[in-house]
Amino acid sequence: MTVVADGDSLPTLPEKAILVDALFGSGLNRPVEGYWAACIEALSRHPGVKVSVDLPSGLFADTHSSGTVFRADFTCSFELPKLAFFMPENGPFTGEWEIVPIGLSPSFIDQAETPYGYTRKEDVQPLLRRRNRFAHKGHFGHALLVCGSYGMIGAAILSSRACLRSGVGLLTVHTPRCGYSILQSTVPEAMANPDRHELHWTESPSLQGYAAIGVGCGIGKQPATLEALRDLLKQARQPLVLDADALNLLAASDLLSLIPKGSILTPHPKEFERLFGPSSNDFERLALLREKAKALGCVLVLKGAFTAVGSPEGAIWFNGSGNPGMATAGSGDVLTGILTGLLAQGYAPWDAARLGVFLHGLAGDLAAERLGHDALLAGDLVDCLGHAFQYLK
Amino acid sequence: MTVVADGDSLPTLPEKAILVDALFGSGLNRPVEGYWAACIEALSRHPGVKVSVDLPSGLFADTHSSGTVFRADFTCSFELPKLAFFMPENGPFTGEWEIVPIGLSPSFIDQAETPYGYTRKEDVQPLLRRRNRFAHKGHFGHALLVCGSYGMIGAAILSSRACLRSGVGLLTVHTPRCGYSILQSTVPEAMANPDRHELHWTESPSLQGYAAIGVGCGIGKQPATLEALRDLLKQARQPLVLDADALNLLAASDLLSLIPKGSILTPHPKEFERLFGPSSNDFERLALLREKAKALGCVLVLKGAFTAVGSPEGAIWFNGSGNPGMATAGSGDVLTGILTGLLAQGYAPWDAARLGVFLHGLAGDLAAERLGHDALLAGDLVDCLGHAFQYLK
Amino acid sequence: MTVVADGDSLPTLPEKAILVDALFGSGLNRPVEGYWAACIEALSRHPGVKVSVDLPSGLFADTHSSGTVFRADFTCSFELPKLAFFMPENGPFTGEWEIVPIGLSPSFIDQAETPYGYTRKEDVQPLLRRRNRFAHKGHFGHALLVCGSYGMIGAAILSSRACLRSGVGLLTVHTPRCGYSILQSTVPEAMANPDRHELHWTESPSLQGYAAIGVGCGIGKQPATLEALRDLLKQARQPLVLDADALNLLAASDLLSLIPKGSILTPHPKEFERLFGPSSNDFERLALLREKAKALGCVLVLKGAFTAVGSPEGAIWFNGSGNPGMATAGSGDVLTGILTGLLAQGYAPWDAARLGVFLHGLAGDLAAERLGHDALLAGDLVDCLGHAFQYLK
Amino acid sequence: MTVVADGDSLPTLPEKAILVDALFGSGLNRPVEGYWAACIEALSRHPGVKVSVDLPSGLFADTHSSGTVFRADFTCSFELPKLAFFMPENGPFTGEWEIVPIGLSPSFIDQAETPYGYTRKEDVQPLLRRRNRFAHKGHFGHALLVCGSYGMIGAAILSSRACLRSGVGLLTVHTPRCGYSILQSTVPEAMANPDRHELHWTESPSLQGYAAIGVGCGIGKQPATLEALRDLLKQARQPLVLDADALNLLAASDLLSLIPKGSILTPHPKEFERLFGPSSNDFERLALLREKAKALGCVLVLKGAFTAVGSPEGAIWFNGSGNPGMATAGSGDVLTGILTGLLAQGYAPWDAARLGVFLHGLAGDLAAERLGHDALLAGDLVDCLGHAFQYLK
Repeated sequence: MTVVADGDSLPTLPEKAILVDALFGSGLNRPVEGYWAACIEALSRHPGVKVSVDLPSGLFADTHSSGTVFRADFTCSFELPKLAFFMPENGPFTGEWEIVPIGLSPSFIDQAETPYGYTRKEDVQPLLRRRNRFAHKGHFGHALLVCGSYGMIGAAILSSRACLRSGVGLLTVHTPRCGYSILQSTVPEAMANPDRHELHWTESPSLQGYAAIGVGCGIGKQPATLEALRDLLKQARQPLVLDADALNLLAASDLLSLIPKGSILTPHPKEFERLFGPSSNDFERLALLREKAKALGCVLVLKGAFTAVGSPEGAIWFNGSGNPGMATAGSGDVLTGILTGLLAQGYAPWDAARLGVFLHGLAGDLAAERLGHDALLAGDLVDCLGHAFQYLK
Repeated sequence: MTVVADGDSLPTLPEKAILVDALFGSGLNRPVEGYWAACIEALSRHPGVKVSVDLPSGLFADTHSSGTVFRADFTCSFELPKLAFFMPENGPFTGEWEIVPIGLSPSFIDQAETPYGYTRKEDVQPLLRRRNRFAHKGHFGHALLVCGSYGMIGAAILSSRACLRSGVGLLTVHTPRCGYSILQSTVPEAMANPDRHELHWTESPSLQGYAAIGVGCGIGKQPATLEALRDLLKQARQPLVLDADALNLLAASDLLSLIPKGSILTPHPKEFERLFGPSSNDFERLALLREKAKALGCVLVLKGAFTAVGSPEGAIWFNGSGNPGMATAGSGDVLTGILTGLLAQGYAPWDAARLGVFLHGLAGDLAAERLGHDALLAGDLVDCLGHAFQYLK
Repeated sequence: MTVVADGDSLPTLPEKAILVDALFGSGLNRPVEGYWAACIEALSRHPGVKVSVDLPSGLFADTHSSGTVFRADFTCSFELPKLAFFMPENGPFTGEWEIVPIGLSPSFIDQAETPYGYTRKEDVQPLLRRRNRFAHKGHFGHALLVCGSYGMIGAAILSSRACLRSGVGLLTVHTPRCGYSILQSTVPEAMANPDRHELHWTESPSLQGYAAIGVGCGIGKQPATLEALRDLLKQARQPLVLDADALNLLAASDLLSLIPKGSILTPHPKEFERLFGPSSNDFERLALLREKAKALGCVLVLKGAFTAVGSPEGAIWFNGSGNPGMATAGSGDVLTGILTGLLAQGYAPWDAARLGVFLHGLAGDLAAERLGHDALLAGDLVDCLGHAFQYLK
Repeated sequence: MTVVADGDSLPTLPEKAILVDALFGSGLNRPVEGYWAACIEALSRHPGVKVSVDLPSGLFADTHSSGTVFRADFTCSFELPKLAFFMPENGPFTGEWEIVPIGLSPSFIDQAETPYGYTRKEDVQPLLRRRNRFAHKGHFGHALLVCGSYGMIGAAILSSRACLRSGVGLLTVHTPRCGYSILQSTVPEAMANPDRHELHWTESPSLQGYAAIGVGCGIGKQPATLEALRDLLKQARQPLVLDADALNLLAASDLLSLIPKGSILTPHPKEFERLFGPSSNDFERLALLREKAKALGCVLVLKGAFTAVGSPEGAIWFNGSGNPGMATAGSGDVLTGILTGLLAQGYAPWDAARLGVFLHGLAGDLAAERLGHDALLAGDLVDCLGHAFQYLK
């Protein structure tokens, strides 16, 4: 049954009818208002299943939608996902979305110049290195993780395990003394290098010999910790991964300029806002991401359902793996461990970030197959990393 | 062979005969005495298998049975379980029971007005929420567990793990200092917030920011702990889960009236008696449960083979999952963790209680498939929670 | 090819020939000497496979063999194993043995009066109880384990885990303080009751409320520990399981008479000798076992390849499960935990001992299927207990 | 398409052509220079797949190659691997290699007198012992591991677990006090014997009763540790396994002569160089290995892709199991545990070394099947030891 809403009154739909929304084509980027807005609003209230074709009516494909937008349960789009699909603000409009190929020439797609990418298995597969038969652990780098504080030592466990399972050759973990026995009991493959302070991180260890350094998971925001971070940033010649409270300390200080080029920062949206200020919508935040990645000469990883990875050259790739079961305590600590492990092995920051973010999400997808979304814990991501690497090969 | 016991003497049965008891219909609620009582008593001593149809002779369907009742090994009843089947006191009479459909109209059953329900998979399935693609950990709440004391820190481990595996976004655990390293080693996904006291809980932490709070597993009954509980109850604006020694402290104090409406209390029968006084039989206890749930404005969970969940509105649902392998140390700690985790995610207390109790029992059933009843530990319940969630979906 | 050795010279056998030894029938109990001894000695040196039928020539069926005995690789015997087959001293003669039924009437076998039994699956299956639907943890008893000392806390972990996996309702573990955190981290289902001493067991805890008590794994032999054991024995009204250093302390003291009737002692052969003095051969040791079990009114479990379980009434049953992979550190601690758990559930000591020893061996057999003999650890036995219970049902 | 490079100019190959290198036969041991060197160099730059037959052109079969060598991706050789294939320096030339049988008589191969062997499954299978039915834990020896220091206690965990999973009867671990609780929590089957020092190894424990001793994993290089090592070496009458910092301490001292005959030393190439001085190439290092094994009367295990095991009699066997996923922190600690466990069970040092090194690699291969190379951790090797033993039987 085709119902065309073209007059002054909307037809009444049976309650279980599937409503297919194909009123407005994509890409108009013109706000829907007045009469049509009322139609869209009324149709959005239909209690049955609502499907949009190409784009929900009223949604702008690549900028913030200012008018009324149809609220679909599913959106079926063509060939490539639209930029709008990756924005949390549009989740209520697109619902679940799927991309259907319609026979566009692949070379045409590849040649289209765009700073945006969508990371899928085939994009990261070629990044993954094979291990040489004669390789020894020195070939895979020595990583340093600086993490944990009184009450938050679990973050150190999770990022350490993830770092080791990402293929690093050696790992040293710097935690406050209260984390010493905990870490040695739970991560026997890591070496511990305790701070002189019982509860907090207060001194930068010597950074010599480390190929990459991950800083921030569970470190807290003590003044002494800020000073230790300042010392570390001044000393560092290696690429860093900066996460969590390291980002919060950066946001509340003047240290941003000390970050070594080629580092990776992994804020979630609130940390991003603390670091770089507010945005009025998701598209503005994306523009800010690109601007800041260029300014810092760093890779910025804005974590979310479709994590956005921005390069110093201005590219932004959205991650194509992962699921909402990963919205759980410690998930970010695991990502920091993975990224540090990949950097230590010599992956370029841009490759490490896209590959690491994809592996993290893939591990989550493999874990969710077994455990579902509700029961999934951050530790399960680590347990699935081996399977994720295997799946990529 | 049909043996009709209608005269002065009972026929002698061959030792291996299956004795089918269909003498007295259900629902008479009249005590059997005298001659027929002697018959029932004699037949109950039959060494072969004894099967009752509908109800064991002499058993009252929905009130305490005062006369002699036939002791069946199996009871085969029709369409819906009788209230009497859920009472521990009737276990020796019904033996194992099973319900057989006999074609009653489902709408007739649904319309029958009764405060009693029997929770099965199809009842809790619709309660379970799907996670939105763009959800982040903030959407799933921050839970607080106050648990453990010197010698009982294991209770904190078990309830913390269960809380995390129930889908909570963030978890903080408040334990005495003697639990600090233990908890951080064993539950890395949780944050620890140690008390100032080495051995016991002595101070209520600030409750701000927590969506739900679970209190009581392994906390002991020190005077200082009672005071900390008092402070916590005064502060609390969130729904609580109160279990174990929190209930024992409530029973020995004047704090009952401080419990926030919408909280869940999870006593086993002895704790229930300490809280609310003795009952002369299981039906009276059930009436007391309903009365107290109304009076407190709380959900009461009376733990047992068929855990009874009572709402402030007077409904009582018996849980349809679980097995006697769950009669093991720490099983209740796991339930407290699950309920706290569900409350923190925004499940209404009545939904959280029925869903949580069912998931707990289901996890036990899945664990028992692999391990049987004897070897089952509380930790196995946590390990099976993911599978239980998957099974419900 | 049948070679009959009946004259002055032995025929020369081809190197790979299978040598079947059927020269002397069983049960003669007469030492082989002189010429025939030389024959047997010569044939025993045959490099090919050697098989004995019924009994290796020269072996006495039910007493110590004093003459020369043929050394078979395999022995194939009939209907029932001979007593001699269970003795370590005869291992070099029988090699691997197998029993083949030859059609003896089962009732004839059952009626044969003998104090000896051979525990197989069908013997312990009827001992195993089913859990009642309405059972709660109080029905399965509260066990106490007194175990561990500085450097030997692992014994406490292993026996605690085994006790819990054997179906006990509640478990409290008394260790020196140095074991406190270790035990709470690794066995969350158990409650810890630390001694006042940091390193050793020095005080008997109150024994009230415990259904059974296991004492001795890893406790060491300090004088203060002996005094604590004396106090415990004086207090105890429950059945005990006494193992390891508890036995060594008993052996070096005057405490044997304090052991409550109905306790279980689990010495290995060296501990047995320390307790009860030396024996000149395995049959004498068996006689001593029976004598001492009667004198003490206890069940004695002499651990070995075919663990001998002796009752106060004089029966001795050899265990039919287990394998040499269980000859590994901590295996005995696991057995103590199992036996204590079964006693606490109300199993009679004689049943608990036969069932527990069989379950222990069965768990070892299930573990060995997966891991083989070399890699098997005591912890694997605990992990396989659930499977072992399931296998028995 | 066969391309013969026989003139002044090389033909141009299509980019995806498979280049088969069969120009120079094996065994000439004459450096390629001048015109042909230029040809080889040019062909080595071919971007397609390059395959060498028998030997890459220019490679010497059993000595250091001084000229230009073709750089193959794969080498297909015949009947037996050439000595050159085991040398890390030749990895870039041979690429992956495979051996194809061409029908040489096995007896001819066996009779060829060579100090070199290539350990495969069938070589170590006959070394593996079967456990006697009546064996008890005393039959499998009591091992001592001296390992760990502040920050490196994980090494003690890994080697202890590996030692136990290798079949030892009893294990005692000597660590500094800071490792006490860690070790007892994580390896309950082991006994702990803490040093009097909190952070480092400073005193040799009594060595009586130990069948074998493993020393060195994670011990650090404190002066007091050197003295403790000196004392231990003077006391020791058992075979030792010396690894890691024990080797570094030996290298920086005069203790080499104190090592008991029949010990096993397990250096990686850098430790080897510290102990015995530099070598100008891999063949020279191999000659030095043989010389030093003879001089010390010890088994030397030079760890690498094809670990070389040298006997005091001058034999050198290359290990045929393992993969580059094992190039990860703690892998060597696991090997030390295995070797100590085998020595303690009474395996001769030469057998223990070849069997242990093969088991270690095999466990790695089994782990890699499940986890791949990147995610493989040293702890996974221990988890796969049981499977490795089973695979060998």
